[in-house]
Amino acid sequence: MRSSWIKPRLGKDNVTQMNFARNGYITEEMDFVAKKENLPSSLIMEEVARGRLIIPANINHLNLEPMSIGIASRCKVNANIGASPNASDINEEVEKLKLAVKYGADTVMDLSTGGVNLDEVRQAIIQESPVPIGTVPVYQALESVHGSIDRLTEDDFLHIIEKHCQQGVDYQTIHAGLLIEHLPKVKGRITGIVSRGGGILAQWMLHHFKQNPLYTRFDDICEIFKKYDCTFSLGDSLRPGCLHDASDDAQLAELKTLGELTRRAWEHNVQVMVEGPGHVPMDQIEFNVRKQMEECSEAPFYVLGPLVTDISPGYDHISSAIGAAMAGWYGTSMLCYVTPKEHLGLPNAEDVREGLIAYKIAAHAADIARHRAGARDRDDELSHARYNFDWNKQFELSLDPERAKQYHDETLPEEIFKKAEFCSMCGPKHCPMNSKISDESLDQLKDKLEECNTSV
Amino acid sequence: MRSSWIKPRLGKDNVTQMNFARNGYITEEMDFVAKKENLPSSLIMEEVARGRLIIPANINHLNLEPMSIGIASRCKVNANIGASPNASDINEEVEKLKLAVKYGADTVMDLSTGGVNLDEVRQAIIQESPVPIGTVPVYQALESVHGSIDRLTEDDFLHIIEKHCQQGVDYQTIHAGLLIEHLPKVKGRITGIVSRGGGILAQWMLHHFKQNPLYTRFDDICEIFKKYDCTFSLGDSLRPGCLHDASDDAQLAELKTLGELTRRAWEHNVQVMVEGPGHVPMDQIEFNVRKQMEECSEAPFYVLGPLVTDISPGYDHISSAIGAAMAGWYGTSMLCYVTPKEHLGLPNAEDVREGLIAYKIAAHAADIARHRAGARDRDDELSHARYNFDWNKQFELSLDPERAKQYHDETLPEEIFKKAEFCSMCGPKHCPMNSKISDESLDQLKDKLEECNTSV
Repeated sequence: MRSSWIKPRLGKDNVTQMNFARNGYITEEMDFVAKKENLPSSLIMEEVARGRLIIPANINHLNLEPMSIGIASRCKVNANIGASPNASDINEEVEKLKLAVKYGADTVMDLSTGGVNLDEVRQAIIQESPVPIGTVPVYQALESVHGSIDRLTEDDFLHIIEKHCQQGVDYQTIHAGLLIEHLPKVKGRITGIVSRGGGILAQWMLHHFKQNPLYTRFDDICEIFKKYDCTFSLGDSLRPGCLHDASDDAQLAELKTLGELTRRAWEHNVQVMVEGPGHVPMDQIEFNVRKQMEECSEAPFYVLGPLVTDISPGYDHISSAIGAAMAGWYGTSMLCYVTPKEHLGLPNAEDVREGLIAYKIAAHAADIARHRAGARDRDDELSHARYNFDWNKQFELSLDPERAKQYHDETLPEEIFKKAEFCSMCGPKHCPMNSKISDESLDQLKDKLEECNTSV
Repeated sequence: MRSSWIKPRLGKDNVTQMNFARNGYITEEMDFVAKKENLPSSLIMEEVARGRLIIPANINHLNLEPMSIGIASRCKVNANIGASPNASDINEEVEKLKLAVKYGADTVMDLSTGGVNLDEVRQAIIQESPVPIGTVPVYQALESVHGSIDRLTEDDFLHIIEKHCQQGVDYQTIHAGLLIEHLPKVKGRITGIVSRGGGILAQWMLHHFKQNPLYTRFDDICEIFKKYDCTFSLGDSLRPGCLHDASDDAQLAELKTLGELTRRAWEHNVQVMVEGPGHVPMDQIEFNVRKQMEECSEAPFYVLGPLVTDISPGYDHISSAIGAAMAGWYGTSMLCYVTPKEHLGLPNAEDVREGLIAYKIAAHAADIARHRAGARDRDDELSHARYNFDWNKQFELSLDPERAKQYHDETLPEEIFKKAEFCSMCGPKHCPMNSKISDESLDQLKDKLEECNTSV
């Protein structure tokens, strides 16, 4: 689809959606997104120009079906996949990608750190993916020098970043906001630095006693990104790894730098979103969202959870979906899912499913709470089907139809029960929806009650 | 334990905790609860007297370990169990009770509607239960006249209510707030009346064209309750069954009546909590909690969920845990769990586990967000264990240690990995907690940075 769109752009200095938008040009991607979101193309263009909406769409990702991330559009969900040295292979990762897309992932990040050829798995994923693919280049930069912080140079980072761009990666987590002067603020935390990329950069800065190369070379990265229209996902290396560390000086100092970098990227007309926590108690979530909007001039916010308690290993998809739903309601643009395996191991296919549905719930609930036009239509339709005992329609309208049907059929599998006016929860005699009161009866009752009142 | 406490109370007209509290007497139950909650006994007494805290403790439930429900104490979780005509038997229900208690249910409701001898299953559950047991007597009232609304009399309701009291039921859902004049307000809803008990009473009122017998005979019920210290759980028959119906006139009209009844019960020194929704969009949850406090003079609020979207069949424990956590944060005292089988079938043992842990997360997150003293201690302890790679300690401090261990061991089962400085998520080289920066290094860095700044 995109080949013909992109052809005329080839050879241009700056092919970003933001550059086109700021020059008053509505791209095919903007039109496509406008239809998807049921919004005017002109609004999409204005929001992209303003930096409040991004369309992560690398010109080398030709089979991409463009989508948007920003407060004007629906709340989005990202799924992380990727092999680790202990588990998985290329085929398994491509399967996870397909599963993620099936269950509604709006973007997918390939966080592979080993166990496979990193370039090959990334290429395979991009080729198969209709949704934007994000990556974290720092892992591979370190891998490219066999894990030696000492040998890792500034150019190594930029080399890998450009390689990802060439392959068609739509957005990259760039940990440029972590400055050497932020590091002493980490003292007193319970869990220190919990960002993998951030941890590598912290080690690098300490070892070399030099400023973060992704910060000092930020303009060079912008030059690379504008050639491919790769979008920044500014990484939050100092995100809290537990409730105790939430909203502390370290986190907020980095957030301020992320705001500066947002505006610096915008000077290059390069698209930006900003990553956020993590682990945050419920009463601090609104503060975190508002603060990001303020510091980062309303660039789209992209949060990981946040988990609202630390004591839920095995169920972190649930504790983080609570935080994610609230973050979405307060105005976060994309929610990065967390699976039941978080903090315990690499997720498998079933974990991807569980994590994604939890986050589809969170994002959808956020859209409803924000009164987004039409957001509740599907809920109302399902509720009508429920009241009318149209079981198949209920399943169909569910976020995970197979699961809904499977659970229903566990006790009442026979086809006849798909029209039954009950399920096994209450049985045939006690379903309250079984004894409907018609509108006519209610009107008659009303009249009768009014007569009685008058006669008193 | 309670036999000796209760002996001197036998034969008294009014044995409720509220009656004792209002007479300035601190019962053994209040002392017990005070220790559990780490609060002064005098405060417990004052809150019980004020009606803002309840201790559901029927004098015939001798093996009960008393607990409290109210804004001064920790947020609580209820688990519903019970057989339906399509599934389950007595042993299975007793097993579900034990499982519910194991996973941290603070109270358990037996909602059996058939398939078993209702009296026997209730007796078996009470005998085995260290936590308060709640019931909904309306189901059995209808059952006692073989399902005939026509033959069902006011006295039938009271007869069953007293029977439950005699058996030792600690609280009963009494649908007294649904008045005949509320019924016309149901018109225009998508899902009508979704309370099973409420549905029966609506049918009864329509059929007989008479006021709700639980309302007209409310003082008689108070007289029964004060003999046993059974607590009211005032049922919300008109709770919304979908987002569309949330916070509508029907719901709010009934809530007003529930407030009147709360104060009427208090005149008898009978304990009360008030039930709440249901299905509520996130942006209406705070309103619902505040409104209940206002209408019901701060009697403890006990909500079912609420679900924040209707399109999550198979995952309603998650969509409702989001609403429950927020409701708890805003001041709800007890959260009634919802299992993954909600709207689809009768929950089995695994569903009880999934539902309960989701709600333990919600209640705990609410306690943290309310800044309850010590609420975050366990989180901090687990985070320390996490940072120190003490896997066994992490499992131990989790809400579901078996699940946490099982998930971890799925990829790294060998005992040696219980001390490993990584899990399969990131592998041995990429765990950010693996490259800790010591406080000394951070201090040195700080000094070095300050020197550089001075020299500039």
